[in-house]
Amino acid sequence: MNQSELVQLIKSRKSFLCVGLDSDIAKIPSSMMQLEDPVFEFNKRIIDATLPYTIAYKPNLAFYEALGSKGMASLEKTMEYIQGLSDSVFTIADAKRGDIGNTAAMYAKAFFERMNFDAVTVSPYMGMDSLEPFLSYKDKWTIVLALTSNSGSGDFQKLHTSTEYPDQTTSESKKLYEAVMEKSIQAAGHQGQLMFVVGATHGEMIRNIRAVAPDNFLLVPGVGAQGGSLSSVAVNGLNGHCGLLVNASRSIIFASSGDDFEKAAAAEASMMQEEMEQLLRDKKIIE
Amino acid sequence: MNQSELVQLIKSRKSFLCVGLDSDIAKIPSSMMQLEDPVFEFNKRIIDATLPYTIAYKPNLAFYEALGSKGMASLEKTMEYIQGLSDSVFTIADAKRGDIGNTAAMYAKAFFERMNFDAVTVSPYMGMDSLEPFLSYKDKWTIVLALTSNSGSGDFQKLHTSTEYPDQTTSESKKLYEAVMEKSIQAAGHQGQLMFVVGATHGEMIRNIRAVAPDNFLLVPGVGAQGGSLSSVAVNGLNGHCGLLVNASRSIIFASSGDDFEKAAAAEASMMQEEMEQLLRDKKIIE
Repeated sequence: MNQSELVQLIKSRKSFLCVGLDSDIAKIPSSMMQLEDPVFEFNKRIIDATLPYTIAYKPNLAFYEALGSKGMASLEKTMEYIQGLSDSVFTIADAKRGDIGNTAAMYAKAFFERMNFDAVTVSPYMGMDSLEPFLSYKDKWTIVLALTSNSGSGDFQKLHTSTEYPDQTTSESKKLYEAVMEKSIQAAGHQGQLMFVVGATHGEMIRNIRAVAPDNFLLVPGVGAQGGSLSSVAVNGLNGHCGLLVNASRSIIFASSGDDFEKAAAAEASMMQEEMEQLLRDKKIIE
Repeated sequence: MNQSELVQLIKSRKSFLCVGLDSDIAKIPSSMMQLEDPVFEFNKRIIDATLPYTIAYKPNLAFYEALGSKGMASLEKTMEYIQGLSDSVFTIADAKRGDIGNTAAMYAKAFFERMNFDAVTVSPYMGMDSLEPFLSYKDKWTIVLALTSNSGSGDFQKLHTSTEYPDQTTSESKKLYEAVMEKSIQAAGHQGQLMFVVGATHGEMIRNIRAVAPDNFLLVPGVGAQGGSLSSVAVNGLNGHCGLLVNASRSIIFASSGDDFEKAAAAEASMMQEEMEQLLRDKKIIE
């Protein structure tokens, strides 16, 4: 899915909601445990319940790997199910991978080719040659970690950096996450396929981030269970083509721990979609 | 395996060689392709051929994920095979994971509990709360990326960092990888379970790294296919209890592309073990 198709999807569904499939088997309703593949079945029902309000699904790889090869099979079935839907939807492998070139190329192959995700999240610590194998897929999206939603984001991402030992004459200081964004934009060239992860817990900082990356889509986790505010994210982060995907995981998929989980998930997603529709209207992205 | 057991293993096998199981199915001898699980069978034969010279195996997750749930099953079988060996060996999941707390906890569970690895590699970009779920396993090892072997390691890892906007009065500059190592050592407290990834391509810098982390084990990739020198790594990096695991992947497991791959892998591993034995003797770690 290219950028204009993604923007069209946002406009038609009047939503920029991404639902995170952090499908922790320990939290899936116990009544589903006798099914052959409870994780896949849970995902299927969550997708059916939330699709009218949602433009993207983001399985979090950790929750599938924790179940070994069986978990990976549940993920494969989930992706097949999404690709068989008549409604269009964007898919993100939340994998946060980052490794040397030949290994990164294998991860890119795993997510873009084998599982046919539209996008994958990657970690920039190892440098630009670790991102290039992902960026080289011109019809896919690379989503680079910039400023994450957790409190530990202060430990390294917000450090001031410089290429020279800093002194008053040479200091051209950027924070690490700004250096990551600038170098990534430079490497991507064509910006359509490059997004950044920016936590909703940094609502007020998103305005500064827009100065570095005015055109890129931002994937924003941290609304919901982690406490970020949707309106603060939108006021600071929406650009002329929306430019935001806001993710909620636990607050939607585990809105109820009982057998009414589909209804509760739909209600939560619907509430977010309504707020998003108003925010898109206020910004004149939709009429 | 705790630190004294690891040191004992190094002394008894007179080696600090780790063999990287980057078992790319495209490079496995074509004669093995008719077997039911060529990747597992290749790993098994490589392990049998190299075990006398080797103290650790390091499967690289990318090469298994690229094959989906089948690849993960090959990895599970490989780990079961290693754990059934009568000879002791250290196992590392080369996964380079890093995510927010609840997700990191699932990755830790996947590698430490489900697959029973001794160690896992992790990426520090998201900060210390993304590493803590791994560090909390007191009987397991967390291996934090510090200064990696690829050329992109210069992009961010070597940037000078400071917590304040740098000027002449406040500049207490550390490179990013040094800040990562210092914070990790502080968080780990008990150092026995904390290692760092330091590329062999930075041989001369390993002396500086030993100043920051005199006691920690270093996992050193980049000898072999990537061109790092074993003797330079050892001269600068060996400490009183060895403190090094040197990894070679492609140069051993794909030493031959033909049916003599086991013999070629054994010869390559044996050559490295001999050089290591001499280095351990020179340093008086063994007699």
